[in-house]
Amino acid sequence: MSRRIRRTPYTNRVESFGVSGFSVVNHMLFPKSFGNSIESDYWHLHENVQIWDVSCQRQVEIRGRDAARLAQWMTPRDLRKAQVGQCLYLPLIDDTAGIVNDPVLLKLAEDRFWFSIADSDVLLWAKGLALGASLNVTVFEPDVSPLAVQGPKAEEVMACVFGEQIRNLGFFKFGHFSLFDTTQIVARSGYSKMDGFEIYLNDSDLGEELWDLIFQAGKSYQIRPGCPNLIDRVEAGLLSYGNELTKDNNPLECRLKQYCDLSGDIDYLGKRALQAIAQRGVERKMRGVVFGGEPCAACTKPWPVYVDNCQVGQITTGIYSPRLKKNIGLSMINSDFWDYGQAVDVHVSNTVRSGEVARLPFAH
Amino acid sequence: MSRRIRRTPYTNRVESFGVSGFSVVNHMLFPKSFGNSIESDYWHLHENVQIWDVSCQRQVEIRGRDAARLAQWMTPRDLRKAQVGQCLYLPLIDDTAGIVNDPVLLKLAEDRFWFSIADSDVLLWAKGLALGASLNVTVFEPDVSPLAVQGPKAEEVMACVFGEQIRNLGFFKFGHFSLFDTTQIVARSGYSKMDGFEIYLNDSDLGEELWDLIFQAGKSYQIRPGCPNLIDRVEAGLLSYGNELTKDNNPLECRLKQYCDLSGDIDYLGKRALQAIAQRGVERKMRGVVFGGEPCAACTKPWPVYVDNCQVGQITTGIYSPRLKKNIGLSMINSDFWDYGQAVDVHVSNTVRSGEVARLPFAH
Repeated sequence: MSRRIRRTPYTNRVESFGVSGFSVVNHMLFPKSFGNSIESDYWHLHENVQIWDVSCQRQVEIRGRDAARLAQWMTPRDLRKAQVGQCLYLPLIDDTAGIVNDPVLLKLAEDRFWFSIADSDVLLWAKGLALGASLNVTVFEPDVSPLAVQGPKAEEVMACVFGEQIRNLGFFKFGHFSLFDTTQIVARSGYSKMDGFEIYLNDSDLGEELWDLIFQAGKSYQIRPGCPNLIDRVEAGLLSYGNELTKDNNPLECRLKQYCDLSGDIDYLGKRALQAIAQRGVERKMRGVVFGGEPCAACTKPWPVYVDNCQVGQITTGIYSPRLKKNIGLSMINSDFWDYGQAVDVHVSNTVRSGEVARLPFAH
Repeated sequence: MSRRIRRTPYTNRVESFGVSGFSVVNHMLFPKSFGNSIESDYWHLHENVQIWDVSCQRQVEIRGRDAARLAQWMTPRDLRKAQVGQCLYLPLIDDTAGIVNDPVLLKLAEDRFWFSIADSDVLLWAKGLALGASLNVTVFEPDVSPLAVQGPKAEEVMACVFGEQIRNLGFFKFGHFSLFDTTQIVARSGYSKMDGFEIYLNDSDLGEELWDLIFQAGKSYQIRPGCPNLIDRVEAGLLSYGNELTKDNNPLECRLKQYCDLSGDIDYLGKRALQAIAQRGVERKMRGVVFGGEPCAACTKPWPVYVDNCQVGQITTGIYSPRLKKNIGLSMINSDFWDYGQAVDVHVSNTVRSGEVARLPFAH
């Protein structure tokens, strides 16, 4: 445990609640387990409510006269109609249309944005672009550490803490709510297919008090500490930067076409590269793969996907779904083999499993 | 263990050699222990030879007509006299003179450089600057994974593998050497105060073969797998990005003044900010702190440093030195208290230890 890897405002609580493993995202601790099985956490998340320390979703704030221009420059998603109070999932791409990150953008004001980021230093990327192009913006990482409240009982818990008006918050909208005599941003969002909220706590010193408040309110709803659930994520077809998405992928092959303006009406980095890819067509696409055999534990090395003796893809995230009673995975699949129902073989350790290409998401 | 965190060409070997813990640097696995105590590894490193998987020191290659211009723009170190074949330790800073990274720069050609980086996405930083300023360069991460051979017997082992001419390689110089019918870059360098080499292996597929070759050659020198040693690092006053160095620090307060051209003769990002800091003087400086009491295990949370009732610094990396038979640490110390010999109190857990401000390095 190096000091280089930053603790969060909730790490003390997470430790006292029995965290049994951490990962590292954005140079910060990210709890991965509290001693329960992934399946036990999955059912709990789908029936109750969980509290997740997602502080590692750091905010990159862009503020100033050229803020809107820089934000638009960084993404192919058309931001012209974006509203203050809206959360927008979007890819950030480079000049070759390679994916740099897939954050959620919060439009705080016409000249003020937060990128709530996945695991790459968007702070340096945005600052580099801004300094290189002499834009009139300030780019920095504010003291904001999101805490997620996820699951079907999340709304009940959040109403106890923030008042009844939180029930009116629409999906992927955010608002300003009172907490300990401060005002905090709360969004209806989360890295799960269940209902949920993310509290963008903007004062680290309040972390433990907030954790305790949520936990107290959640007691009658069987709240427990958790983290994004792998089964839930794969079922929902939620992609993960560093796994499914890398700088070697473009958004068109990653099911992100809906977030790409190809009309030429707006200017963004990588537009020509993206238009060229659209023109000639992608060579592979992100697909689901469903396959049989013994229930698989989470894949830690990619599982190759074959048709006959030809490798046509690899599962980058896969696991057994107790709901579907099948193994499921996310894989890029080469163009000749990406039709739904295509028979494939999946190589898991020393076994070969029969399966087929499937539609994403696997289940809502 | 998420797939998001990249394995290295040596990870299979590291696992079969009994790695007992990993950290994460640059989205990549970094072995932290092989089951021995830090002190046992320390003595072994100082008497024998170790092999370290430092693949996480990723290379950011900058190539093209404006490569030298971009490299100089990113650092206050004067690169005008840099020679091909030279390794240059240097800070990268932003417009406020905040430290972005502290890589080693390898000048491969007049128009081709590698930044061998610490833990932040310099790739995005350099690409952002280049794209923003429309520079004529290519910026990318090549398939290069450094393997370090460190310790007083390193030269013997390296001579077995690469031939006698490796003995002539000067400190912080690199050359091209044959390996398995390929040509590889080898530098005399390493994150230790001992002699050592870093092999910049430019073909992942050769990783295990190289590991085996080094290990075989090292058998008669008691080689064992290891990693940068905390005791050695603190004794040597080697700073670590994310620990001692962050974007909230400037190079002048971090003992890096020798790598900062303040003359105004060269142009780099943050020059005006750095000159202003030099003009008004820094408010704190990186110092050693030596203190008594029971031997301390490595610090995982900062240890505050007090003079009377006033906090004057905090130890960001600290541990017991079995050579000096004292606890030692690295700390920024405020200006009124940074003289060598200044008496201080160090707060470790619930104890208060008497100590004093000391010169770095503690020991060569």
